[in-house]
This record gives sequence, C-alpha cells and structure tokens, in this order.
Amino acid sequence: MDGNSLGEAVAAQDIVQIRTALKNWTPPMIASAIKDLTDVEQAIIIRVLPRKAAAETFQFLDRPEQEKLLKAMGQEEVATILNNMSPDDRTALLEESPAAITKQLLTLLSPEEHRVALSLLGYPKSSIGRLMTPHFVAIKQDWNVEQVLRYVREHGQDSETLNVLYVVDDEGLLIDDIRVREFLLAHPNKLVSDIMDHRFVALTATDSEQVAVNVFLKEDRKALPVTDTAGVLLGIVTIDDVLKVAEAEATKEIQKIGGSEAFDEPYMSITFWRMVKKRAGWLVILFLGEMLTATAMGFFEGEIEKAVVLALFVPLIISSGGNSGSQATTLVIRALALGEVKLADWWRVMRREIFAGLALGSILGSIGFFRIAAWSQFSKIYGPHWFLVGLTVGVSLVGIVMWGTLAGSMLPFILRRAGLDPATSSAPFVATLVDVTGLVIYFSVGYVFLKGTLL
Amino acid sequence: MDGNSLGEAVAAQDIVQIRTALKNWTPPMIASAIKDLTDVEQAIIIRVLPRKAAAETFQFLDRPEQEKLLKAMGQEEVATILNNMSPDDRTALLEESPAAITKQLLTLLSPEEHRVALSLLGYPKSSIGRLMTPHFVAIKQDWNVEQVLRYVREHGQDSETLNVLYVVDDEGLLIDDIRVREFLLAHPNKLVSDIMDHRFVALTATDSEQVAVNVFLKEDRKALPVTDTAGVLLGIVTIDDVLKVAEAEATKEIQKIGGSEAFDEPYMSITFWRMVKKRAGWLVILFLGEMLTATAMGFFEGEIEKAVVLALFVPLIISSGGNSGSQATTLVIRALALGEVKLADWWRVMRREIFAGLALGSILGSIGFFRIAAWSQFSKIYGPHWFLVGLTVGVSLVGIVMWGTLAGSMLPFILRRAGLDPATSSAPFVATLVDVTGLVIYFSVGYVFLKGTLL
Repeated sequence: MDGNSLGEAVAAQDIVQIRTALKNWTPPMIASAIKDLTDVEQAIIIRVLPRKAAAETFQFLDRPEQEKLLKAMGQEEVATILNNMSPDDRTALLEESPAAITKQLLTLLSPEEHRVALSLLGYPKSSIGRLMTPHFVAIKQDWNVEQVLRYVREHGQDSETLNVLYVVDDEGLLIDDIRVREFLLAHPNKLVSDIMDHRFVALTATDSEQVAVNVFLKEDRKALPVTDTAGVLLGIVTIDDVLKVAEAEATKEIQKIGGSEAFDEPYMSITFWRMVKKRAGWLVILFLGEMLTATAMGFFEGEIEKAVVLALFVPLIISSGGNSGSQATTLVIRALALGEVKLADWWRVMRREIFAGLALGSILGSIGFFRIAAWSQFSKIYGPHWFLVGLTVGVSLVGIVMWGTLAGSMLPFILRRAGLDPATSSAPFVATLVDVTGLVIYFSVGYVFLKGTLL
Repeated sequence: MDGNSLGEAVAAQDIVQIRTALKNWTPPMIASAIKDLTDVEQAIIIRVLPRKAAAETFQFLDRPEQEKLLKAMGQEEVATILNNMSPDDRTALLEESPAAITKQLLTLLSPEEHRVALSLLGYPKSSIGRLMTPHFVAIKQDWNVEQVLRYVREHGQDSETLNVLYVVDDEGLLIDDIRVREFLLAHPNKLVSDIMDHRFVALTATDSEQVAVNVFLKEDRKALPVTDTAGVLLGIVTIDDVLKVAEAEATKEIQKIGGSEAFDEPYMSITFWRMVKKRAGWLVILFLGEMLTATAMGFFEGEIEKAVVLALFVPLIISSGGNSGSQATTLVIRALALGEVKLADWWRVMRREIFAGLALGSILGSIGFFRIAAWSQFSKIYGPHWFLVGLTVGVSLVGIVMWGTLAGSMLPFILRRAGLDPATSSAPFVATLVDVTGLVIYFSVGYVFLKGTLL
C-alpha cells in the first residue's frame, strides 16, 4: 500500500483500512509516509496506532511537525505519547519547546515519568546527562547466569538496549559492564563475578556531548554507562543517539565556519525570515568590520592617487590573505573539535603555521612577481617601474599570507580559551580581519619600495 | 600500573611482568598506552598479548603507527595479526597501503580470510561493501527459539554483533532481521516464523558510505544488513563503523569548505610538506583566478584615476559578495550531504536564495548608504557628490550580495550534477568567483550613477 491510498483511507476516516494498511510498517516508514498529510490527518493516524508505536512514530517526525501535531491532538493523546516516548528524545523535545509549553507538557506526565523528565532537564544543555536514558538493566555480582537471563526476560522490556548489562554494588556504584553475549555463551551456573573483568569505560553526566562522540569513536561500544562524579550509575547513552549528536554538531560547525549562525533545523523547513535572521547577523557584523577597509584605503588615498597601479592589486592581495586564513582556521577548528589538537598545543600549531604560511606565501609571492614581470614584457600597464611594483606585490603576499595563516590558526585557540566556540572564527570572519590588516601591510611595503619613484 | 612502569618492563623484556601489567587492560587502553614506545617495543607487547587481543589492539592504533609496526614485526606475527583482524578494519588497512605491500600482506592470509579480503576489496572505494563484515548469524524460519539460542551459543563467537539475527531463505535471500532481545523475551518453543514481522531495512553493497550514515540516522538500529542488488545477504554494517565514517566525512567536508584538499590523516601527524602540498594546490588555483581582479581593475583604471573615491570601497564591496556567497554555499553543501536537499530541489533553493540575497543585500546596502551619508556630514572625504557615491555603493551591494548568494547556492548543485563533490565549491572558491564579477557589477553601477559628475 502506498502513501496515496493511505491518504484516501485517512480522508475517509476508515480506521479498519488504516490499521490494515499500517500493519507491516515500521515507525520510521510511517513517519515519512505521513509527512505530507495535514496535522489533523496525522493525528488520526497516531490515534489508530498502538501506544508504543504511536510514540515511536512521533519520535521520528521532525521537530516543527511534532509541535504542530501536539497542537492538533487532544490532551489525553498528548499525555499517552509523552509517557511512552523514550526519556532522551522527550528531553530534547521539552528543552526545545517554549518554557510555557514545557511546563504544560510536564503536567501531563505520570508521577514516575515526571520525576525522570525533571531530573534529565536538570543537566546543562548539550551535556551527556541530556542524552542519557535511565532505562538499563542493572545486575548484582552474586547472581548466576540463569538468574541474570531470567531477570532480563522479566525486567528487560523497558530497557533501551539489552546488549550490555551493568553490574552495580549495593550503593549503586558501577563496578563493571558485561555484554549480554557473554551470558548467552556462558554456562547457566556460572556466577556474574566469574564473568566480570572490572574493565569498563564510563561517561560523566556533566561532560559535553562532543566528549561522548570522541569516546565512542575510540571505544568499540554500542552503549556506554553514565555516572555522576562519584561513580554512581545514572543511565546509559546509546551510540545511535551519539551518531545523531555527531552529525548535528558537524552541521553546526560547518554552518558557523560558513559565517552564519547555526540553524538548528533543516535548510528546507526553516522559515524564510528565521533563516534571513540567522544569516544577517554575522553578515552585518562582518560588513561593519569590513568598513574599516574603506577607512584604511582612505588613509592611503594620496598614495593611490599618485600610483593607481597599486589599487589594481588590492583585491588580489587581500583575498590571498583571506583564503590562507580561511584554510588555516577551518583546519584548526576541526582538529580542536576532534580532540586531535588540545588547547596546550597552541605553541606547536603556531610554529607549524608560521612555517606553512612562509612556504605558501613564498609560492604565491613568486607567482605574483613573475606574472607582473611577464606581463610587463608585452604591455605598459604596470609602467616603467614594473620591477618595483612586482617586488611590492611579491613581498606583500609573503607577509600577508603568513599573517593570514597565523591569525586564522590562532583565533580558534583564543576563542576556546575564552570559553567560546572555536567555530565562531568562521572563514569570512578571518578573511575580514585579514583584509583590514592586509591593506596596511600592502601599502606599507609599497611605501618602502616605491618611495622616491612612484610615491 | 601506569605507562611508565610498563615502559620499564618492556625495556627489561620482562614478559611475565608485561603480562601481569596488561591483564586488566582493554585493547583501546593498551593502544593508547603504547603510542609513545618505539616500534620494537610495541612489537614486543603485541607479541605478548593473546592473538585476539593483539589484533584488536593493532586495530586501535593510528594508520601510520600500524604501518611502522608491520615493518617491525616478523612475517609470522604479521600473519597472526592480519588473520585475526576484523575483515572491515583489515580492508581499510589493505586499501590504504601501497599496492605492492597490499599484495604481500594478502599472501599472508589463510585461504578462507584471503577469499573474504579479496571479495571486500572488490567493492568500490567509499562504498558500503568496504565497510561490511561477513561475520553475522543467519537463521532459518522453521527453527524454534531454543534452537536459535543454542545455535548462537555455538556459532556466535566470530559474529561482529549478536544484537540482531538475520533470517534467510534457502537461496540466501534476506527475509527478515530480528533483534536478539525478541528471543530472550520469548518462550523457548516459539518458532522463528512466529516472531518474524517481515519488516527490515537493508543497505546495498554498492551504495556510498554517506547513504549508510543517512539510513542509520533515520532508523534506530545498531547494525543493518547489506545485500547485493538481488537481495542476497552479504554481510552487516555496524553503527560504530558508521560513526567513524560520519566523522571522517564531516572532516573531509569541512577541510574542503575551508579551501584545502582533504588531509585524510590527523592535523598533528601529517608531515609538514604533505600538508603544504594539500594546501598549496587550491591556494594557487584561487590566486590564479583572483588575478582576473587585477585585469578587471586594469580595465577600469581610467575610472579609478578620475574618481579615486570609488577605489576606497572596492574591498568592502567585493568582500560582502564573498561573505554572502560563502554562507550560501556552506549551507547548501551541508544540506546536500545530509540529504535534506536533493538535486531536483535546485529550483526551490534558487528561488529561496534569490529572495534571501535580496533581503540580505538590502540590509547591507542600506547600512552602506547611511554610513556614507552620515560620514559626509562631518568630513569631505567622499567629496561633493557623496549622495551619488552612496547610491552607487548601496545599489551595488544589493546586486553583489544577490549574485554572491545565487552563485554560492547553485555551484554545489552544478558540481553534484557533474558527478563531483559539492564541497569542492569551497568558501574561498565562491569568494574568488564573486570578487571578479563583483568588480564588474560595482564599476558598471558607478558608471551609470556617476556619468557626467565624477566620471
């Protein structure tokens, strides 16, 4: 059955037909099939589904669709959905809703789910605590394999994952994690303590999400336990949520590098004016910064009048600084995000980038000089002092590319040190910074080389 | 025991002490502890470990360290490691080694592993086939739960994951996947066919890795089956490998957006000259393109001589086009990579970006005009025709920002259509493109407004 005939069944409010149609569909399939239906039609389908399937389908919808649907559904239906959602996805929904809505939604939860939701919302935004689910299976070390498997069969229904079981002591302190496969492959009489190896990696609830991404990248695990700072097991984080975080973080980073605020919603579904607002902010700041170039140029107006030939190379010179700066800053931002480079490495990066800037600047400077020299054999455009003009351009390029590389690579460190996101040092931001200073370098070099001839 | 005392034990070649020291360590811990040891010392530790642990530890080392270690180890040791590595990680190692080394390493494999390695290497680079492992548990639909659990206990040792079991028919065609938890929670006499729901999502071996990332983001699964185009089950891909692919793809995308070739190795471990080479290529291409600005400026040399005031705003004007273009191109590149925007959406994106460019250009244009107007109340720097100069700057900004936004948003579509990576349309690339055309727009607008007064 395809989406069209589903639409017809919904339009006819034929509940039996809808139910038959959806029988073999998974929640992600249902979510993508009902995307183009109206809110009211979506609400009908959600109503027809069993409560668990309804909550799961709801989780697979985009945030804006979820918000519309919440409005279209009756209070009781909303309560059913919320109480059946997984705690981590519900936390994400609650934290992104306006405060008044969040408060109202919280009142719809059962006392037990209400307690869970409040405690998850207590962790800082973008912390591991917000990602975790308190549904895991904890076992004791004096149980045997058969007891464990029976316990899993009885209490495992609600668990987010059954791949790993967690051994805790009487105080709730995490003492080991054991993959469920160990129990499947072991003799029923073996004790948990005989299977334990006391080797486990745990996350801390207050750490940032990016820490979780980097730990999952290093360890081959599908889920990791989360503890408080004392080591008490609070919940687990599963790798599928971490994959989503990793992609969302990369998207934010890329959008910031491109010189825009992070959208936090898909390009095609963000409203036009919200998008313009997110983009205009940085463009205006950059524009105001770039106005300093007009001031700098005004300062050298006399030189330009005397030697218009200098003005011809202004775009070439400043863009080369901007390009090398954009390059350096994106490389360093990404290396910092991946943890390949630490804050303390700034000095090694600086040394590296100074030499890289020198090498890259020398390459561009030579090309620039030889281009002017070659052109001057056939044309008079650069005048009789073409050699000095070429030297000015070549030497300026070395200086400006070095400066662009240095500024671009150090800015992310300075931002991180100040507690800000290194990705704020976007490519356009570095380009603007280097444009202004690049002009000063260029005209100063020109002044030295051309004093007494052109100037 | 810390890394230092481990180092001492290794230096003393005290095998018993090394063994005791490493007893409770996981392979990732060992890999990170031995990173600073010499190749020979690393080889000693690998030799002391049980073969499975040795292969796993080897898998957690960085690629350059793996290569050094392979050289430091004896042929027999290399064979043990290779035969015990997981097929997907081994494929990655083999495909990144020089052809001669790959050939030599392949001869060290057992006939069975040799067959597996060759078949995985047969899939295109960056395809899902390269990511998959052939170690999974396949079951038949006429078995009961008890038979399944016994089979898993007997044949599960080699499986990459036991979270999901795969039901195949007699021809090997995949007909369902069932989470192992279903069997743990079911009565022992129940038949597999009673548990089956015939709902499964499978990847195709020849699809690209990014497809795997996007499917895993949509489906809440820890592993997905991979089939050939006929539907025959070939292997499985696990989410931990997909997380690594996602991060690596994001890194490549970010480095390209920053205007550099993708490094394919960590910033801190790439050699200086290899890094300069990866960065110089694009910088030189951009520089050669940017030289056209000097040509364009030369074309308007007469106008600049007559109205030097026009030259003052050149950096401001062209950088605004570059900034809005960088912004648009990164947004569209990311949306294409995530699959939020499809190739067929180009027309919707174009319409959206034309209006966004108009809005953003109007904001910047107004600020530009009012800045010149305000300044002219206190200073004579913009001369008696400041109103016309302001109008030239304001109107040019609207046109250039619109053009930058349009070019930046459409380039990724054109590149994707031509079979190239959309991320090649880097921020500096778009900025350069817009610089050249921006100058032509600016001086043409100036010609229209200032003809008869300044020009």
